[in-house]
Amino acid sequence: MSKTVLITGAHGFLGKHVSRDFAKNGYIVTGIGHGSWAPNDYVQYGLTFWHTSDVTLDALIAYAGEPDVIVHCAGSGSVAFSISHPHQDYLRTVSTTAAVLEYTKVYSPNTAVIYPSSAAVYGLADRLPIKETDTLSPVSPYGVHKRAAEMLCESYAKNFGVSVAIIRFFSIYGAGLQKQLLWDACLKAVNDEVLFAGTGKELRDWLHVQDAASLVRNVVDTASPDCPILNGGSGEGVRVEDILATLLRSFGSDELPSFSGESRPGDPVGYHADMTQTFQLGWRPSIGWRVGTDAYVQWFKENHL
Amino acid sequence: MSKTVLITGAHGFLGKHVSRDFAKNGYIVTGIGHGSWAPNDYVQYGLTFWHTSDVTLDALIAYAGEPDVIVHCAGSGSVAFSISHPHQDYLRTVSTTAAVLEYTKVYSPNTAVIYPSSAAVYGLADRLPIKETDTLSPVSPYGVHKRAAEMLCESYAKNFGVSVAIIRFFSIYGAGLQKQLLWDACLKAVNDEVLFAGTGKELRDWLHVQDAASLVRNVVDTASPDCPILNGGSGEGVRVEDILATLLRSFGSDELPSFSGESRPGDPVGYHADMTQTFQLGWRPSIGWRVGTDAYVQWFKENHL
Repeated sequence: MSKTVLITGAHGFLGKHVSRDFAKNGYIVTGIGHGSWAPNDYVQYGLTFWHTSDVTLDALIAYAGEPDVIVHCAGSGSVAFSISHPHQDYLRTVSTTAAVLEYTKVYSPNTAVIYPSSAAVYGLADRLPIKETDTLSPVSPYGVHKRAAEMLCESYAKNFGVSVAIIRFFSIYGAGLQKQLLWDACLKAVNDEVLFAGTGKELRDWLHVQDAASLVRNVVDTASPDCPILNGGSGEGVRVEDILATLLRSFGSDELPSFSGESRPGDPVGYHADMTQTFQLGWRPSIGWRVGTDAYVQWFKENHL
Repeated sequence: MSKTVLITGAHGFLGKHVSRDFAKNGYIVTGIGHGSWAPNDYVQYGLTFWHTSDVTLDALIAYAGEPDVIVHCAGSGSVAFSISHPHQDYLRTVSTTAAVLEYTKVYSPNTAVIYPSSAAVYGLADRLPIKETDTLSPVSPYGVHKRAAEMLCESYAKNFGVSVAIIRFFSIYGAGLQKQLLWDACLKAVNDEVLFAGTGKELRDWLHVQDAASLVRNVVDTASPDCPILNGGSGEGVRVEDILATLLRSFGSDELPSFSGESRPGDPVGYHADMTQTFQLGWRPSIGWRVGTDAYVQWFKENHL
């Protein structure tokens, strides 16, 4: 019998790719969340069932059944949104997580819950690369809400025996992402703009969304009442100036990016994952940042030019 | 013009005493929360307005106005309830705090928010006495939810300039408390039972509820976007066997308490507040634990025998 997975937020950037990855690997995929699908997308991303709904306890009781796995991708996914709409961000990120955990505890106790969290929970890192055991000092409402959601996961795991695993994703990118650095850079490149905020020396750890999805699937067997927490990155720190130079070259530009030298307040200088623990799963990312950036630019050109 | 205070959970144990304290000190007091008042209580505790309602953003918009102070006493207040009803505990503790903070940010930005938190956020303490900067490792859902609520306070303060102060209360007791160690001990004493769980050597830091209320009022002026966090205890660690011996004597018993020797799992061995920071306010508790325990027993005898 096929295994089953419920993916909350399956219409979102990560959710779509996670849906496709699980479907390709033999799971029957049910999605729940906001958004409406184009018919082609629905098939393309491998969903068998879809429910347009808030992710609430009542909705889960109505639609979730007893899947082998729940991947809780629902949530705001944006620091900027969390600053403009902190209460909405709280409801989307923390309250949906509370609902998923309560549902699992009461109605589906054999389900493994995978929670895609964010490196934003580390806040301004003391040292690089960042280990899972390092200090947590989230700054933005987004980071605070992600950490609060993690704490609920840990509480339901340790107090009630719910099987959970948390992945703290660093910079996920790839086809479909219409926000953040690489998207903004594509929009600028179209207009031959090459000036960017910051110094260009900031480190980021890029993970292609297809690799993020395969990592989610690979942690399913580690979910347990111990609530393991694993970094989700590549293990390589890449300077913003280097990835932007690659992106401009992919566009056919022979210009190098230039930088204002001013950092946005609260913007971390460095994010770089220590992947020692995660790599012990045997999983490795398959798409390097140069190849991935080039593929992202091709996707942008095909869909947005 | 009189100052105004909104007290959420004003029908609860701490909320009632906070209401009375603010009223005695010239504030006009509005309460909101669950519970229905006996007519005499209403007057006794100094409320001018009362709204029976969940503490939601909509209810605050309807009833809160623009008070000088909000004291957010609403919340579950019980480790046992958080274990039997974790999702309800989350909603009562975390989601009500999110609503209070959002309300203040958007509709009443000049209000000072005081959040009575709990020493449960420290979890199993590494060392005693506990400082505000010590490690936070909450264990029970109650402790996790209190810490999540604190994090929301810090986020709204630091990201949005809301003025907040947090007090981490240790063991609050006094007239009206119908749960926890001293209440259980009174019920046992009535039946001449003197056997208690644990070893009796466990330390607790007792603060009379009238002192807790006066501390709340005394931190109002420290509320700021820096979100100061202060311990709320007496600074004295008292062994369970000592306070129970005092309680039994107040009952007129000449027996000493005896102990099973078994601790309940997760029950902290020691809670004892380092009060250095709080005492810098000039505030001191006025009721010592011996006098307070005797008064509690008198209240019990007058009301429950």
